[in-house]
Amino acid sequence: MNAKIKWLRNQLLSLKLDGMIVSNPVNVRYLTGLSEEGTLIIAPKENIFVTDSRYIESVNRKLTIDDEIVAYDSRNFNKYDYEAIFMVSENVGFEENYVTYEKYKNYLQTYQVNLVETEGVIENQRIIKDEQEIENIKKACDITDRAFEYIIRNIKIGMTEREVAFEIEKFMISNGADGLAFDSIVAFGENTSMPHYTPTDRIVQKGDIIQFDIGCRYNGYCSDMSRVVFVEEIKDEYKQVYDFILNEQRILSEVLKDGANIKTVIKDRETDYRFKNYDVMHSFGHGVGLDIHELPILHSRKDNILKENSVIAIEPGVYIPGKFGIRIEDTFLVNKNYCESITKSKRDYTIIKLQ
Amino acid sequence: MNAKIKWLRNQLLSLKLDGMIVSNPVNVRYLTGLSEEGTLIIAPKENIFVTDSRYIESVNRKLTIDDEIVAYDSRNFNKYDYEAIFMVSENVGFEENYVTYEKYKNYLQTYQVNLVETEGVIENQRIIKDEQEIENIKKACDITDRAFEYIIRNIKIGMTEREVAFEIEKFMISNGADGLAFDSIVAFGENTSMPHYTPTDRIVQKGDIIQFDIGCRYNGYCSDMSRVVFVEEIKDEYKQVYDFILNEQRILSEVLKDGANIKTVIKDRETDYRFKNYDVMHSFGHGVGLDIHELPILHSRKDNILKENSVIAIEPGVYIPGKFGIRIEDTFLVNKNYCESITKSKRDYTIIKLQ
Repeated sequence: MNAKIKWLRNQLLSLKLDGMIVSNPVNVRYLTGLSEEGTLIIAPKENIFVTDSRYIESVNRKLTIDDEIVAYDSRNFNKYDYEAIFMVSENVGFEENYVTYEKYKNYLQTYQVNLVETEGVIENQRIIKDEQEIENIKKACDITDRAFEYIIRNIKIGMTEREVAFEIEKFMISNGADGLAFDSIVAFGENTSMPHYTPTDRIVQKGDIIQFDIGCRYNGYCSDMSRVVFVEEIKDEYKQVYDFILNEQRILSEVLKDGANIKTVIKDRETDYRFKNYDVMHSFGHGVGLDIHELPILHSRKDNILKENSVIAIEPGVYIPGKFGIRIEDTFLVNKNYCESITKSKRDYTIIKLQ
Repeated sequence: MNAKIKWLRNQLLSLKLDGMIVSNPVNVRYLTGLSEEGTLIIAPKENIFVTDSRYIESVNRKLTIDDEIVAYDSRNFNKYDYEAIFMVSENVGFEENYVTYEKYKNYLQTYQVNLVETEGVIENQRIIKDEQEIENIKKACDITDRAFEYIIRNIKIGMTEREVAFEIEKFMISNGADGLAFDSIVAFGENTSMPHYTPTDRIVQKGDIIQFDIGCRYNGYCSDMSRVVFVEEIKDEYKQVYDFILNEQRILSEVLKDGANIKTVIKDRETDYRFKNYDVMHSFGHGVGLDIHELPILHSRKDNILKENSVIAIEPGVYIPGKFGIRIEDTFLVNKNYCESITKSKRDYTIIKLQ
């Protein structure tokens, strides 16, 4: 059995659960490596993956005897097979954050067992990355850095936000990414004031600020990076916000480390924002892994101790409605003493010339 | 107020519901045109959209007075504001197929009202498309047809499944699509036996069958098309399956029309499959709209009457494990008397020469 499923089984023991129904495909992939649709059932006697006829062949090709997972085609799995799984069990965990109300009622009927909320046991397990996971994230970050380096040399007169976004995505896919981590954000000028933005046909102009927020996947694992560059010149009002944001990110990367309480750290940053009269429009960051946004979230709502080998995106941003916005973001690996940046694109003022 | 929200309000009346909480972003987009994150609350007195600070500016730019939707930043919306919405209400609908168990419990606390399952009232409303929706789907289908025409002329010696998929996607995005409807499937040779497949670095060879399953979005609306082509030559065993599948699709497009019972129609097709000793590996199709898979599903599990102006993908397929598979799929508009194909790529044997 692989280390991740073993770890989960130990967690379930300590939660006094006889098993767990894992439905979230990201959690299934995390635990098994399988990206095929299906339900992973951690049962007292075995690990079962019920998939459907579209996937059974490729699932069986991927699983080896060491996985200790038995795959079934749901067509050959009937009412009694489901009921037999937890025949001698009392309490079985489910993913209350993923399973819909409808599905919950359906599980009650299918498995005939008491379903217990697990409070994100797998999502919490996913926070700490193993070597292979960190390696995958590093690969995704490296592709992202190279895409950024490529694009800032190739923005031409007349290009639109959509065209620039497309060039970035093409670069990432052609350079080994297995997909995008999210739809790329490319915003010019006044459009940068909206932190979550969809590229349009707005054409680049001299004096523009350009906001990038880009990321890709490698073996399913994500990267996340935001940069701002300036077209031909930098206005002073941009510099002030840029310097503030860069300093905020630097402080965060020094203070966030193994054992730090995220709440306390973020409260200090919010004080800085208030002092400058800036709005805090979104959290200061989030975990990065098989999901682009995962635990932990960098906000001040509750106590939360950061742990070594977490991977987090730190992304302070300031947005002046109707005018402009600046966000700088990198993917970091949490160490004993600080956060090590995995995305490595330079962070000083970057002025581009239109070709 | 727009026609879609008016229609929903009438449905809620007949379900004896005082309002509804709409959380599924696809349903929100359908009803409002907004793609920003947030919750749409159909309340007795007004329509409310609670979004967050990242989106409030762009939401307010898009909404007009005619929409009769009031947008709030969740930061300015407190416990009492939520409780006030349904102060005089008794029963309020929610999306039991979308809302997680955790969220359901959270809604109970937030809205202090009796939550009632709506049995997919909006998903059912979405089945029948209006003129604008059909126009969007036609645009997406046209781009897909052109992408297919382009790719079969541009498959070169040495190309991999991934490269071919990428060329298709590049073409669609460069030709007006706002995104992909799903990750493109391109499978060569023996890989075609897996209906849901992720392209690999397998290189195209003489004698290969190539399975395409591709689609894009236009204003959020999807297209869906599958084709099989043959490299340099067609083997006889391929022809037999191809002819069978094509005939199945033709029959389905003639029999599926306004008033047809999907269950009866599909049962007949399944008899054909049994007669030939072929496995039915997946449904015969599905609705297409803002989601790539939506209602109705073309299977024989329960009675279901098809209606005019539904848009459906019809996709019979046969898969011989370890050998090959063939699926032909088009997006159709359901008429009074038959299904009209919106994707128009030709369906006769297509033999390509490698460049």
